[in-house]
Amino acid sequence: MGKLITAHGEINTPVFMPVGTQGTVKAISNDELLECGAEIMLGNAYHLNLRPGLEIIRKAGGLHKFIGWKGPILTDSGGYQVFSLAKLRKLSEEGAEFSSHIDGSRHFITPEKAVEIQEILGSDIMMTFDECVHYPAARDYAEQSLNLTTKWAKRSKDFLHNTQYAIHNTPNHSLRSGSGQANAQLLFGIVQGSTYPDLRKRAVEELLSIGFDGYAIGGVSVGEPQNLIHEISSYTASLLPENSPRYLMGMGTPVDMMEAISNGMDMFDCVVPTRNGRNGQAFTWNGELQLRNSEYKEDFSSIDKDCGCMACRKYTRAYIRHLFNAEEILGLRLVSLHNIHFYVKLIQKSRQAIKDDCFESFRLEFAGKYITTKRTV
Amino acid sequence: MGKLITAHGEINTPVFMPVGTQGTVKAISNDELLECGAEIMLGNAYHLNLRPGLEIIRKAGGLHKFIGWKGPILTDSGGYQVFSLAKLRKLSEEGAEFSSHIDGSRHFITPEKAVEIQEILGSDIMMTFDECVHYPAARDYAEQSLNLTTKWAKRSKDFLHNTQYAIHNTPNHSLRSGSGQANAQLLFGIVQGSTYPDLRKRAVEELLSIGFDGYAIGGVSVGEPQNLIHEISSYTASLLPENSPRYLMGMGTPVDMMEAISNGMDMFDCVVPTRNGRNGQAFTWNGELQLRNSEYKEDFSSIDKDCGCMACRKYTRAYIRHLFNAEEILGLRLVSLHNIHFYVKLIQKSRQAIKDDCFESFRLEFAGKYITTKRTV
Repeated sequence: MGKLITAHGEINTPVFMPVGTQGTVKAISNDELLECGAEIMLGNAYHLNLRPGLEIIRKAGGLHKFIGWKGPILTDSGGYQVFSLAKLRKLSEEGAEFSSHIDGSRHFITPEKAVEIQEILGSDIMMTFDECVHYPAARDYAEQSLNLTTKWAKRSKDFLHNTQYAIHNTPNHSLRSGSGQANAQLLFGIVQGSTYPDLRKRAVEELLSIGFDGYAIGGVSVGEPQNLIHEISSYTASLLPENSPRYLMGMGTPVDMMEAISNGMDMFDCVVPTRNGRNGQAFTWNGELQLRNSEYKEDFSSIDKDCGCMACRKYTRAYIRHLFNAEEILGLRLVSLHNIHFYVKLIQKSRQAIKDDCFESFRLEFAGKYITTKRTV
Repeated sequence: MGKLITAHGEINTPVFMPVGTQGTVKAISNDELLECGAEIMLGNAYHLNLRPGLEIIRKAGGLHKFIGWKGPILTDSGGYQVFSLAKLRKLSEEGAEFSSHIDGSRHFITPEKAVEIQEILGSDIMMTFDECVHYPAARDYAEQSLNLTTKWAKRSKDFLHNTQYAIHNTPNHSLRSGSGQANAQLLFGIVQGSTYPDLRKRAVEELLSIGFDGYAIGGVSVGEPQNLIHEISSYTASLLPENSPRYLMGMGTPVDMMEAISNGMDMFDCVVPTRNGRNGQAFTWNGELQLRNSEYKEDFSSIDKDCGCMACRKYTRAYIRHLFNAEEILGLRLVSLHNIHFYVKLIQKSRQAIKDDCFESFRLEFAGKYITTKRTV
């Protein structure tokens, strides 16, 4: 439990960070995010660099102003796209060349470029550019990739250091950091190393010796079996220093997040609440519901009787099911909103339980009554 | 200008009624509708009867409870679907047999059935079942169709009368009218007659002799040229009694509505604000904008500087353009919301101008600066 201080406000940890890849949490307005209790949102430097492009965001006065979000923003660097857009990129020691999935144009992203993009975006928390390795990865490949990621981490830090020095000596640098202070942007390093514990350990040591404002675990949940996800992430978490923010990237289900908090993780992001919400899957204090199922057709209760979100205060399961059947946008809006609210509240309650020194009993009680359904995505 | 009293509250006229065909104004929540100043919303008896079906809505306690809307609801009867789903229906003296566009199931809608459906829905304002005739219609066909529509109007009124008598004598009738009063539901007649002034005149006379709570002009804007739309609707409007609500169905653009108010019309509904909004077309006090156009890519002003809607208070044209380019749902949400807000405010301001006895100058000033763009739909 802690507080992370950024140029756009403090974040209480543990924290769930809704994902707004293209500068919007899908189907949800900023006011709704605030009503849900969200303290920070995510953007993606790779996607925003392609569209709308940096020039527009720079002219708007940075990403916060462009999207109208006044709270902190964390941006991913594009390292995940090295994995997810593998067919569209060529990797070299220098960086990664991507063919845009939008128009085929070529974009060469280096660690330095990734920091520069995030400086122009004005992200409160920037991520280093890394290679997120696929699963399974041969040990040789994983080791070689880790060497690259470490070099890139070093180059990111050096570039930041140099840039900040340069900015510090330049009169007009307001676009480069939200508060106008050159050191207002934090930079997090990302631990890779695939499923090899010794590589993960080496990655942590190397990043610590470079020194970052926070540390993330990347390269999990990239196709490996569930037990391996937990094994590697909990082992890696155990190596990270307690006095730095620890961020588990892209994870996960409510039960996964609770376990990760147990293992000392502080920060989470995941597309599941919105992606599955668009599909009709709702997360509740009693588990998961697929609201399109016919069992809800005459169920005039709210999605979750213990939830205070707008969807639960104003609408019923039967109505939301009808909206999905009738392909009405309001349906996916309501379930996305509810799910974001649930994720944020779950982590808020976890924070309170840590404060009250009863997190493990809170976690076990929650997991005990949480019924999972078959994943819809 | 007037007040229309319904079981779920008073409506100030002239009024714009946002369209919620399937029980939701597309992409917009009920709270947002209220924030826009909407005093009533529309539903469609034909669509709601097919999906979710009357049984579910009856069990929910009526349409208001099912959709969570506490204000007045007007429902169209399905007469428009006789026109719009012409290939899926067979017409007879008795009624219209539809093949469901959802599952092909057959549904026979008679004037009596249409009233009964709307009674179960609990609509504050019910519409009679009619034949909305296509354009062009031969005079013979138009006349024959009008004969049918008049007979159907009479049968609707008779059925209502009989039902209300029956309800009045039945202990449990709360589902059949919002307030528990048998006469709480209003029934409007619909003037047809295609583009033939004498048929329109006859239609008005026949409906008046039957006697309804309000009168609607149907069968306009069904493919006829713009000048004919105005000619027929203004002529018909001139025949309708001033002391009854006069409803111009399915119209239209801002300038059309203002002209119709000039001609004495009180009530309007139209899908244009939401349908065109989903396409990026915004309505403003200075005319129409297509927000996807590249001219807005670095335009960091609001959609309309004179608008106080959430989209205009919180977001810029450049951001909304980005949302459309990136196919993000928030984009169509914001423009739909703005357009509904604009339509409601335009009619509210018209109402004030009537009160201040300066409507014609208000209308001319508005039309003078209102620049139209090519229709996007």
